[in-house]
Amino acid sequence: MPGFLNPLIVEAAVRAALDEDLGRAGDVTSLAVIPQGTRAHAAIVARRSGTIAGLPLAATAFRLLEPAVELELLASDGDVVAAGTKLGTVAGTAHTVLAAERTALNFLGRLSGVATATAALVARVAHTKAKIVSTRKTTPGLRALEKYAVRCGGGVNHRFGLDDAILIKDNHIAVAGGIKAVLARAREAAGHLVKIEIEVDTLAQLEEVLAAGGADVVMLDNMDPATLREAVRMASGRVVLEASGGVTLDSVAAIAETGVDYISSGAITHSALNLDVALDIAM
Amino acid sequence: MPGFLNPLIVEAAVRAALDEDLGRAGDVTSLAVIPQGTRAHAAIVARRSGTIAGLPLAATAFRLLEPAVELELLASDGDVVAAGTKLGTVAGTAHTVLAAERTALNFLGRLSGVATATAALVARVAHTKAKIVSTRKTTPGLRALEKYAVRCGGGVNHRFGLDDAILIKDNHIAVAGGIKAVLARAREAAGHLVKIEIEVDTLAQLEEVLAAGGADVVMLDNMDPATLREAVRMASGRVVLEASGGVTLDSVAAIAETGVDYISSGAITHSALNLDVALDIAM
Amino acid sequence: MPGFLNPLIVEAAVRAALDEDLGRAGDVTSLAVIPQGTRAHAAIVARRSGTIAGLPLAATAFRLLEPAVELELLASDGDVVAAGTKLGTVAGTAHTVLAAERTALNFLGRLSGVATATAALVARVAHTKAKIVSTRKTTPGLRALEKYAVRCGGGVNHRFGLDDAILIKDNHIAVAGGIKAVLARAREAAGHLVKIEIEVDTLAQLEEVLAAGGADVVMLDNMDPATLREAVRMASGRVVLEASGGVTLDSVAAIAETGVDYISSGAITHSALNLDVALDIAM
Amino acid sequence: MPGFLNPLIVEAAVRAALDEDLGRAGDVTSLAVIPQGTRAHAAIVARRSGTIAGLPLAATAFRLLEPAVELELLASDGDVVAAGTKLGTVAGTAHTVLAAERTALNFLGRLSGVATATAALVARVAHTKAKIVSTRKTTPGLRALEKYAVRCGGGVNHRFGLDDAILIKDNHIAVAGGIKAVLARAREAAGHLVKIEIEVDTLAQLEEVLAAGGADVVMLDNMDPATLREAVRMASGRVVLEASGGVTLDSVAAIAETGVDYISSGAITHSALNLDVALDIAM
Amino acid sequence: MPGFLNPLIVEAAVRAALDEDLGRAGDVTSLAVIPQGTRAHAAIVARRSGTIAGLPLAATAFRLLEPAVELELLASDGDVVAAGTKLGTVAGTAHTVLAAERTALNFLGRLSGVATATAALVARVAHTKAKIVSTRKTTPGLRALEKYAVRCGGGVNHRFGLDDAILIKDNHIAVAGGIKAVLARAREAAGHLVKIEIEVDTLAQLEEVLAAGGADVVMLDNMDPATLREAVRMASGRVVLEASGGVTLDSVAAIAETGVDYISSGAITHSALNLDVALDIAM
Amino acid sequence: MPGFLNPLIVEAAVRAALDEDLGRAGDVTSLAVIPQGTRAHAAIVARRSGTIAGLPLAATAFRLLEPAVELELLASDGDVVAAGTKLGTVAGTAHTVLAAERTALNFLGRLSGVATATAALVARVAHTKAKIVSTRKTTPGLRALEKYAVRCGGGVNHRFGLDDAILIKDNHIAVAGGIKAVLARAREAAGHLVKIEIEVDTLAQLEEVLAAGGADVVMLDNMDPATLREAVRMASGRVVLEASGGVTLDSVAAIAETGVDYISSGAITHSALNLDVALDIAM
Repeated sequence: MPGFLNPLIVEAAVRAALDEDLGRAGDVTSLAVIPQGTRAHAAIVARRSGTIAGLPLAATAFRLLEPAVELELLASDGDVVAAGTKLGTVAGTAHTVLAAERTALNFLGRLSGVATATAALVARVAHTKAKIVSTRKTTPGLRALEKYAVRCGGGVNHRFGLDDAILIKDNHIAVAGGIKAVLARAREAAGHLVKIEIEVDTLAQLEEVLAAGGADVVMLDNMDPATLREAVRMASGRVVLEASGGVTLDSVAAIAETGVDYISSGAITHSALNLDVALDIAM
Repeated sequence: MPGFLNPLIVEAAVRAALDEDLGRAGDVTSLAVIPQGTRAHAAIVARRSGTIAGLPLAATAFRLLEPAVELELLASDGDVVAAGTKLGTVAGTAHTVLAAERTALNFLGRLSGVATATAALVARVAHTKAKIVSTRKTTPGLRALEKYAVRCGGGVNHRFGLDDAILIKDNHIAVAGGIKAVLARAREAAGHLVKIEIEVDTLAQLEEVLAAGGADVVMLDNMDPATLREAVRMASGRVVLEASGGVTLDSVAAIAETGVDYISSGAITHSALNLDVALDIAM
Repeated sequence: MPGFLNPLIVEAAVRAALDEDLGRAGDVTSLAVIPQGTRAHAAIVARRSGTIAGLPLAATAFRLLEPAVELELLASDGDVVAAGTKLGTVAGTAHTVLAAERTALNFLGRLSGVATATAALVARVAHTKAKIVSTRKTTPGLRALEKYAVRCGGGVNHRFGLDDAILIKDNHIAVAGGIKAVLARAREAAGHLVKIEIEVDTLAQLEEVLAAGGADVVMLDNMDPATLREAVRMASGRVVLEASGGVTLDSVAAIAETGVDYISSGAITHSALNLDVALDIAM
Repeated sequence: MPGFLNPLIVEAAVRAALDEDLGRAGDVTSLAVIPQGTRAHAAIVARRSGTIAGLPLAATAFRLLEPAVELELLASDGDVVAAGTKLGTVAGTAHTVLAAERTALNFLGRLSGVATATAALVARVAHTKAKIVSTRKTTPGLRALEKYAVRCGGGVNHRFGLDDAILIKDNHIAVAGGIKAVLARAREAAGHLVKIEIEVDTLAQLEEVLAAGGADVVMLDNMDPATLREAVRMASGRVVLEASGGVTLDSVAAIAETGVDYISSGAITHSALNLDVALDIAM
Repeated sequence: MPGFLNPLIVEAAVRAALDEDLGRAGDVTSLAVIPQGTRAHAAIVARRSGTIAGLPLAATAFRLLEPAVELELLASDGDVVAAGTKLGTVAGTAHTVLAAERTALNFLGRLSGVATATAALVARVAHTKAKIVSTRKTTPGLRALEKYAVRCGGGVNHRFGLDDAILIKDNHIAVAGGIKAVLARAREAAGHLVKIEIEVDTLAQLEEVLAAGGADVVMLDNMDPATLREAVRMASGRVVLEASGGVTLDSVAAIAETGVDYISSGAITHSALNLDVALDIAM
Repeated sequence: MPGFLNPLIVEAAVRAALDEDLGRAGDVTSLAVIPQGTRAHAAIVARRSGTIAGLPLAATAFRLLEPAVELELLASDGDVVAAGTKLGTVAGTAHTVLAAERTALNFLGRLSGVATATAALVARVAHTKAKIVSTRKTTPGLRALEKYAVRCGGGVNHRFGLDDAILIKDNHIAVAGGIKAVLARAREAAGHLVKIEIEVDTLAQLEEVLAAGGADVVMLDNMDPATLREAVRMASGRVVLEASGGVTLDSVAAIAETGVDYISSGAITHSALNLDVALDIAM
């Protein structure tokens, strides 16, 4: 249940991608060698195991070029599938199927890659209460879609943009004249529906934050598990704790076991490996 | 000398990325805690070594929000830099610098990641004549930019889209009734400025292609080095040869040493790891 | 200090407005009767007293048609001005000044109207701690600008859109099976940076909310001052309280004096009267 | 019979409004607490009496998010309805109905507000031949829609933009060297399908206009009823007369009774009060 | 003095044209063979005599790719020039000059072609009072620009679109039940700033129109000079007369000499021959 | 079989054209005089003989305004038709049929004009092997559509943009230091799927090109038939030859008979005469 995928954003993104692949002259190869009217049937197949995201975008790629194309989805976004799983079928003119193929697969591959990378971290922390959150380190132009893919992988979303919540970093603290001052100013300025998070590097800073009050969430940046554990003890539930920095498949379980509430990862969006999805076509 | 970066595409991409990060309310944190008019100086710094791509996009992010921002670029796209290298400086209002930061870095990180992944393959084949080429497996919406990043990394570009050249695959061959027939049809239909490439899986198919004539380039798909070497021998310069499939940092040298002309990699665009670039800010 | 006004949104909004006023043929009157090259000097003057919002949009209207136009702003957004106050001057070709006039004034009039309506409510509650907040009942297409105008008038912003915060209404409660259930589900689903508000119509519902926990803000809908006062007593600071419904210039002080934290008004955006601003032109 | 509503303008306006309300994450509340697939039935109800405008826009808001949504309109734009009138019904997924609700209502509320304000003036002058016309003082970005709403309210449209007709004002007269000269120049420059209107402040100016000839319409600016009556007598049908300035619900009948042909009002577009329209939802 | 050229329309049109010429990879030829930084000087030269239109668009093409390009215009739109006339000079990087060349020339060639075709008709009727007007038969997407080019050539503009004026044709007459009825209905529905034109094929119809009253302009469709002359006599100044149909360089003088006020030509926009304009480049 | 017409480009072009014709108020004539709901039947008829192109665009114009409109196409793009041929029928509300009429016809007229001009040249060279190719001298904004129309007329396409192929002209040769140097540089820089064409003015230059090698195509610019014939002899099949310059209906056969492979014409796109297509309407 990965939730919302704005259909207006989907349509705009797929249009732009089709436009950059079709260019001014379209699929010159198929136009040259395949007679007009030739029908094609194709299966969308996951070549590797992973968590799927992006099927509605793939479907839209075919539909925008041929509204009457026949599409059947055999899987849903968020499904974990084995290598070789047929995710859906498409039937239409060969020209349409081949013209939309790469656009459909590029969305599926990228978004499923993000979902799969997220799911891998989520699986490592399943025995803890920690949740995996994404960051704003997303591919330019694809933020809403990649955040959706994170949810498909079982992660949760951090800020969608700079306007979502207050996140105070070291520069803000320095300019404002310290943690107490910056939190006071933030609380004063924030709307009543805006949460405040503050990033700290040391336990001394955390102590200052707890003393000052006014923070909903504290980001513990680049702390080792022992320090994180101590931070959890100090906070004792008064604030939500988010660990960030140095999060890898190898390190994430130890981080989660410290008792932090959230663990954020930029890599699940900015460095996810593509999931290999292909189109098996019969004409 | 990575060549052309269409300024109209740059502006549109950066606008879209700023729009998705700023949302409707902008950088609510900085607006809350940093007094209007506060100036900031920042250095754009590569945290890891790599090949840089995307500096003009980073610069555009700052300029679109504040035309009078002071920017100095200390590196150029295509430069190979060590960890810690200062790539440029920016000075402007703190609100601008912080509002454009993530957009600038997301472009730099992604495109430098592509350039760095490309450069890694290029380095492994430097002792051969083989060139590394990218594919159409790019991030939706970023094709022109990622193709540019490939050039920054020393690679060369394959088709930019379906309309660039004819590339005949197995489905086309099947529909057309065989290699000879498909090449005849392609030659007949292609404009005089359009090259023809055909993908083969076996040496028998290669032989058929060579006998038929009419192909400018042959893509040798998923062949092991021994087979590739034999393909090179068979072709003996009559067609350009491109190896694809199974191209990794470990395998690429052996592939290149077979004598093929080009080696194509989808991974340099669809699975490149982000290069860590950061903004060090002083206010 | 009304804060952020996204320059990309400003430019797009002004372009669209100029486009709809200039049409395909432009200012046919001035083109017919004023010789090319004729210069005009104009003062932007508030004909009525009020709170100003939209000066950067007015300036952009002139600049987009003539980059070299000379503009001097004599007031700032958020200023309270008397009738007759000169807000700025513009000098350029008569054709530009007259072609941009209505677009500039339409933005100024509408946004200053919103700011002035907001400021009127703010003034009535100045002796209390209550803050005036706007809603999502804004003019289609102008939300970010009208929210900015609210801040110019001393108000604060509620949600910018459906994606900003969770706001649970009667339908949500009914579907979820009651207040306790809906709050549990919301808390479970909400990101850690997302606040939760719930709307109640009765004190009994408020009691249920307080007992259930999990709400950051409670919206007290259409309660009279006596009931609001009791609600404040019941909540005793455990949640933030927002009064909504029946908010008018006459009623707002009594509502504020009950001790609620926020008072929301749709009228300040959806029914604000235009502030009369004019251009006095000399050629 | 309010006439034309360009479907391309409708679609673009509704897309933009949905986009600003849904943001990057959509209706996070409903997504959190309402199970996917839940159906909702809703009635669009006018809470206050008034003249309706905008039903096609409301319908489009639902359809763009869910093409298969069931919509039934029980009223038409231009209808005068009593408080409590059901204007239409909508049935679809609860997520769609709730996500499109505010966008649909914001259009209906604003446009019906304009129509109702227009109809109020129209009713006051029904015993005369005078017609109520709107101006270019419209909400930026909504001109075509607000002009349509004016027609729904029984008004007629003045210029849609600067390019529609020639309207000579005091500055034009001054630059051209007087009324006779400006009319001559305008007549010379105007296309044969372009009408000419000129604004006068005094009866002396009107006399000059009548003597000069060449004007199709004269705008009588800010004249009291006695002066208007004299103007009507002087013109004796030779030109169309339009009264402007000081037009209110209280003053409009007296103005109309002077015999002028048209009475223009900026307030019906720039200061119309929202008509309260709501969605009554059952799930 | 060809009047207004909306700078927002100019910029959008030139961006679109550059985009379709540069594609995803830009000017691959110049990038391949001309070193970065090479400067070029070029003269824009009319290879044939004609009337110039489009210089601001040509200038914009260069400026959008290189804001600092040096441009000097030696002619103005509307100028009649001899073959070989230098219209302007441009200096910038060779890459910019060559990349913008075709876009600049395509605008200049097409619009100057329209201006020249218009001027040819205008010259043939210079001894009469008749004016040459264009129609809505323009190149899709270029209407505002081609209407401007018509003015550059000395013509005047008819309707810019369907919304400019009422133009009653045979179908309208048939549906409405005759000329008298259609004119009554049009007069009733038209705004007071909207003129009414009606098309007639016979003198009998003209008589009916004159008897009915209410038409500002009558279009005399496909009448020979003798019939036109009789129409002029019948109308004797009561309506403006426009001749249309069969307008060629050979026929136009005879048509004009009948005394009609306007002569409309679709060919000056839909079938204008390109004016040969070139760029002479020195590097 | 004119091949591909990108449906996304079609929709965008038709939307833009409808937008510029409908303006803000739509077809005010039909709205004034034709009752809502009136149905119209219309036939799209070619008034002159020619080659048809653009029927899908015409159909889209009606469908965008009224999705349920009934359309039947009786001809296909690429068909050669006699004067009076009915190309299709359309039935819908009279308001839709009349509002879309001009947009539909402007596309059909222009594109059929290009197709017809192309077909005329093609017919003159039918006894030779020469093919007619178009250039980049197309109407700004319509390149993909005009290139499609060229194919409808039996022509083939040259470069769609600057990024399609390398085309070396005199300036490139001069900067690079001669033909040999420029070809070496081009070959070095070109991707393996990019062809290289070089323009020569003299046989001496051709000899240099042939000696240097590396060119796929040679453009013979402005040579007379005797010289062309000698060029064909010299090349003896080693390169593809394209003749350009001075190509008219009168000259093209002689050029083709020299044995060149391609003959390029700018006139078929930049100076094509509109084909007269009309809508015969019955209501």
